[in-house]
Amino acid sequence: MPELRKDPVTGRWVIISTERAKRPTDFIREHVVAKGGAVCPFCPGNEDRTPPEILSYRNNGGPWQLRVIPNKFPALRVEGHLNRQGDGIYDKMNGTGAHEVIVETPEHKISLGELPEKRIEDLFWAFRDRVLDLKRDHRLRYILLFKNHGEAAGASLEHTHSQLIALPVVPKRVQEEIDGGLRYFGFRERCVYCDIIQQEKADGKRVVMETDEVQVISPYAPRFPFETWVLPKRHISHFENSDAALLQSLAWAVRATIRKIEKTLESPAYNFVIHTGPVQEGPMLHYHWHIEIIPRLVKVAGFEWGTGFYINPTPPEESAQFLRDAGI
Amino acid sequence: MPELRKDPVTGRWVIISTERAKRPTDFIREHVVAKGGAVCPFCPGNEDRTPPEILSYRNNGGPWQLRVIPNKFPALRVEGHLNRQGDGIYDKMNGTGAHEVIVETPEHKISLGELPEKRIEDLFWAFRDRVLDLKRDHRLRYILLFKNHGEAAGASLEHTHSQLIALPVVPKRVQEEIDGGLRYFGFRERCVYCDIIQQEKADGKRVVMETDEVQVISPYAPRFPFETWVLPKRHISHFENSDAALLQSLAWAVRATIRKIEKTLESPAYNFVIHTGPVQEGPMLHYHWHIEIIPRLVKVAGFEWGTGFYINPTPPEESAQFLRDAGI
Repeated sequence: MPELRKDPVTGRWVIISTERAKRPTDFIREHVVAKGGAVCPFCPGNEDRTPPEILSYRNNGGPWQLRVIPNKFPALRVEGHLNRQGDGIYDKMNGTGAHEVIVETPEHKISLGELPEKRIEDLFWAFRDRVLDLKRDHRLRYILLFKNHGEAAGASLEHTHSQLIALPVVPKRVQEEIDGGLRYFGFRERCVYCDIIQQEKADGKRVVMETDEVQVISPYAPRFPFETWVLPKRHISHFENSDAALLQSLAWAVRATIRKIEKTLESPAYNFVIHTGPVQEGPMLHYHWHIEIIPRLVKVAGFEWGTGFYINPTPPEESAQFLRDAGI
Repeated sequence: MPELRKDPVTGRWVIISTERAKRPTDFIREHVVAKGGAVCPFCPGNEDRTPPEILSYRNNGGPWQLRVIPNKFPALRVEGHLNRQGDGIYDKMNGTGAHEVIVETPEHKISLGELPEKRIEDLFWAFRDRVLDLKRDHRLRYILLFKNHGEAAGASLEHTHSQLIALPVVPKRVQEEIDGGLRYFGFRERCVYCDIIQQEKADGKRVVMETDEVQVISPYAPRFPFETWVLPKRHISHFENSDAALLQSLAWAVRATIRKIEKTLESPAYNFVIHTGPVQEGPMLHYHWHIEIIPRLVKVAGFEWGTGFYINPTPPEESAQFLRDAGI
């Protein structure tokens, strides 16, 4: 019998096919391998092909190891006023914000999972540095941190990179989580994510791995096969308030998780996105930042776009088992 | 300057790129053409390859013109109790419901837009007949009516068909629209969709076409390029309460709209989905059924899945213009 499961945060119901469950080899997918070839604007020597650098990390003044640059084709512009206005019953404002690219390594052909731990830790430090800088602009209410890996996941350049979009609004999915967290807190006076972490630890069957600071799980009601969440174990609402111990543990866990996903699913395209508290708000008892990783295994989602209703062919207990069993 | 626009129903903000707007020829896409070849379970003569028929329309007892059958690989099962239960902090129930397929024509190689008007009217009558039958089962709270056209839109068989999924829960996106409609009604004591129809008629620039009964628009804050909505002009919350005059006008408008989309975008894959009131609820003043059509022009959406945030490269004023100018 298929099962309907409810996401405890947003209240979304999904269908989990418990019969005919799809295994890793059942998914048709693009295998992401960097080929090189064309001139890459992210490779060393081509720095003049990107807008001027915002930030870089270097070893003792040597060549850059990580580089943050403005997106050459930004979705939003830094200059200008928001100019919120009505248009009859509609509402609009100027597309004010920021759109930056984080190039994680000078090496063209290396994927995030192949990078040493320290380089992934640097990526999270760069995210943190950029959020702390951008949040001083009080027009900006939310900063999206994400990675598209592989063409099928929306990456337009193959040299590994992550992105940042700073927005004057809070994205709907994050707002839903915050609202859901508040409803739960109103009922129980506990953080729903903290409760998830406790129950998953006790159950064990959906846990992919743990470190001192971080828990990695297949969530109870995942929309997509092999959807994976990375949660800090201590309660913390805002990513940018993470300390050095957490970022180090996080880098280790994310690296291991991505390596497990790449081994289990033969280097699929994937997206990851950090869900965090809106930058102008103080620490929240009812929200808990986390990372959602979505391997691009299912070819299509138009029906899901139209309805917000998801049919997931792989129970999370099975995906967690596959990922647990995979080496790093 | 890019523009941030808010959907007046759900409150979702989207970025509309008003510079570098993408035109129809800028999108890379699959052109959907039925090829035939393999044995098709939906073709006449192969009726024994599908589960037994639920409904068919025939001319004077002749061969079937439209056929409704259970999905051979259903996402939900008709038999069994819901058995709602907790699982620690989580909630689940059995996957009870129905999953049916509507084969719209005996002809394998014809697309929905190429069918005569009367056959499309029959499709909507079949939807209505099935909803009126299924809603007598009080376990079922929502009936999804939708079509995936083309492999890129999730169609697994090329013979044109639509689908129906009857659910014991209301899908999240529809619930958001109902909640948004209620908020708007609480503020203005008017239906938000009725107000949209009025403003769009007055503005004109996002209207694709109109009939006596139906308005077709590019919505103000579309998530996707060439997203198109079909709305009944008279207020009506439930699709199954549509009368013959509306269904006839609807068939004409949907046929014309799909033909315009196929001409403008060279036969893209597309999804359409009917958003309607939950079947166990009576007529609602604050909700208004409608159809959303989404051509599959943008290759990827993993970032959007993760955030609920959309960047649309084509302003709706431009997509409406292209569709208005296309013949039928």
